[in-house]
Amino acid sequence: MGYVKWSYETLNRFCTDVFHNFGFSDEEGKIIKDVLLTADLYGIESHGMQRMVRYHKGIEKGTIHPTAKPEVVFETPVSAVIDGHNGMGQLNAYFAMNKAIEKAKTTGVGIVSVRESNHFGIAGYYAKMASDQGLIGVAATNSEAIMVPTFGRKAMIGSNPIAVAVPADPFPFLFDASTTVVTRGKLEMYNKAGKPLPERWALDANGNPCSDAPTVLSNIVAKKGGGIMPLGGNDPLTGSHKGYGWGMVCEILSSILSNGVNSDQCCTFKDKTGICHGFIAINPAFFGDAEAIKKNFSDYLQRLRESPKAEGQEQIYTHGEKEIFAEKDRRENGIPVNDNTMVELSNLCSYLHMDFSKYFEGYQVNKDSKFFAGNY
Amino acid sequence: MGYVKWSYETLNRFCTDVFHNFGFSDEEGKIIKDVLLTADLYGIESHGMQRMVRYHKGIEKGTIHPTAKPEVVFETPVSAVIDGHNGMGQLNAYFAMNKAIEKAKTTGVGIVSVRESNHFGIAGYYAKMASDQGLIGVAATNSEAIMVPTFGRKAMIGSNPIAVAVPADPFPFLFDASTTVVTRGKLEMYNKAGKPLPERWALDANGNPCSDAPTVLSNIVAKKGGGIMPLGGNDPLTGSHKGYGWGMVCEILSSILSNGVNSDQCCTFKDKTGICHGFIAINPAFFGDAEAIKKNFSDYLQRLRESPKAEGQEQIYTHGEKEIFAEKDRRENGIPVNDNTMVELSNLCSYLHMDFSKYFEGYQVNKDSKFFAGNY
Repeated sequence: MGYVKWSYETLNRFCTDVFHNFGFSDEEGKIIKDVLLTADLYGIESHGMQRMVRYHKGIEKGTIHPTAKPEVVFETPVSAVIDGHNGMGQLNAYFAMNKAIEKAKTTGVGIVSVRESNHFGIAGYYAKMASDQGLIGVAATNSEAIMVPTFGRKAMIGSNPIAVAVPADPFPFLFDASTTVVTRGKLEMYNKAGKPLPERWALDANGNPCSDAPTVLSNIVAKKGGGIMPLGGNDPLTGSHKGYGWGMVCEILSSILSNGVNSDQCCTFKDKTGICHGFIAINPAFFGDAEAIKKNFSDYLQRLRESPKAEGQEQIYTHGEKEIFAEKDRRENGIPVNDNTMVELSNLCSYLHMDFSKYFEGYQVNKDSKFFAGNY
Repeated sequence: MGYVKWSYETLNRFCTDVFHNFGFSDEEGKIIKDVLLTADLYGIESHGMQRMVRYHKGIEKGTIHPTAKPEVVFETPVSAVIDGHNGMGQLNAYFAMNKAIEKAKTTGVGIVSVRESNHFGIAGYYAKMASDQGLIGVAATNSEAIMVPTFGRKAMIGSNPIAVAVPADPFPFLFDASTTVVTRGKLEMYNKAGKPLPERWALDANGNPCSDAPTVLSNIVAKKGGGIMPLGGNDPLTGSHKGYGWGMVCEILSSILSNGVNSDQCCTFKDKTGICHGFIAINPAFFGDAEAIKKNFSDYLQRLRESPKAEGQEQIYTHGEKEIFAEKDRRENGIPVNDNTMVELSNLCSYLHMDFSKYFEGYQVNKDSKFFAGNY
């Protein structure tokens, strides 16, 4: 399986029509597609077009309720809890982060936790909403259980990403990472590419290391056991318990503060996923001179970039830097999409009665492609 | 080198006299020794008696100012910045976390960042101060650079631990971990034990993996290069950039919000270390029914403990559980102290004109012991 490149404009036109046809308002569609396309622009292929199938299947199966609106069910000047009523994760997250930002501007801090939502795309998108306004932003989400706790053999915790964005010059710090060693999306990419998984990534149903992506993914969907290791692997000697702990921290921000559904029970329902999110915005001006704080941080980031490289290495990146390079490249040269993902986009067009060839002119979909298509 | 066990009471008596003789008030001494002894009781040997030498040398060299008092230099209802005036880290941290707790009780959240402080012991001690009062607690500190960023060969970030404590039944969640794959204290223990370091822990001066603890520690002290890998190792395939990112998050809470000294410059001064801390307290009652939130979390933790074990494993721990078992064991059977640490305690007695044998009756210090004694 190979890749085909499409311009940002092509994918933007396609996504705009997809979400319109799903029944979202123009404003809602714009938010959703911006989150998806930002992932592809940033080079986070796992969370762009590759993930469209999950929203397609979620709406088709009824676990995503496209007409739902987020509702504030508890609120104070520094905090809020939102019931997402099983709507699109992107819409709930966008609403919640804006609320956190609003609070941080007034009171210094805003912490907003969301229950009964859905997969929200890249956490970094929401964290960056805060840093774009001069604030520190944190975004987290739980998800269907995929992380096997240290010494376990059953996935009990989601990939549970947390993103942190902080204003800096010449570009913000943007850390966005699952608390598993890799995301489920990465396994989906290896599955689509037919490649064996690297060592120290995944476990089979007995809790032993496993390099076969289709086996791991199908076990997870069938709840047969196994899954992805925490950051730090499956051995405390390499810090397994630390990745497991960070997964729990994500859970605390999302399903605990919102009193929602924990990762081990997410996606076990017929009519919802139960996925929860958490957002924090912190106003540096409530700690002194925000410009001085930003300068101190920017200087440190620059020293990191300039520090001596390991033998054979040419560059030390600060977090968010690769994304900036990727966006420049992809806006100029196009966004690569896997041929197996194109199969999924073609299926989506059939579902929505859209003309695939209108967007992806001349592209021939391989209808015989074999890959584990999941049960999203 | 072997170990000798001492009762809690013996070490408590010793520590009380040590800090009295250093000139601390009874109240101050009580805080400092409680942080140290809690580490030993919790089985975190790296941060108990083993670390006494650092405080001894810090006071002797003048980087720790024993008479300093923390000063609030910026404050709002949700935030504060504290200048620690280079006093003992434990005293600054205790003061700062209490301030965060006070704010969280009133406004829902308290974030307090401290600059110009010193090594504060275990981060978990302060996080647990919050959970003991029904709040979520976070404690972090930067430290002398020891973490080598991904693709680098010079330590630029501290071991930068972060602890998170959350009320739960039958015992709180208490996650306390360095963002390096292991702490510097662990390397100090391997050094004292004369053992080679496990793979994927440390790097030599050229940025290549290295298993020799004395080499790594002496390189760090001499700023020659090398250090400890981030959680996730030195390869992005195993998540190196994630551990590096968590190290930066710790830096943001400590040296960035307080506009203090970043890890790469900590401990490069003659008359101070510049170490910074960060503390957060969050009041669950500002998110709804605190008891319901606690029950949701406790139930999830219980399902984690009861979930199926990997082949060959008998127990899945939740964070903070091992510490509870360790404390029970050590209160009953004594606290093990390494013979090389006993050499350091004997040197401390000489420095303070204390009678070593009054506390450690019958114990013969090995004056010929060879280990890398550092330059703390």
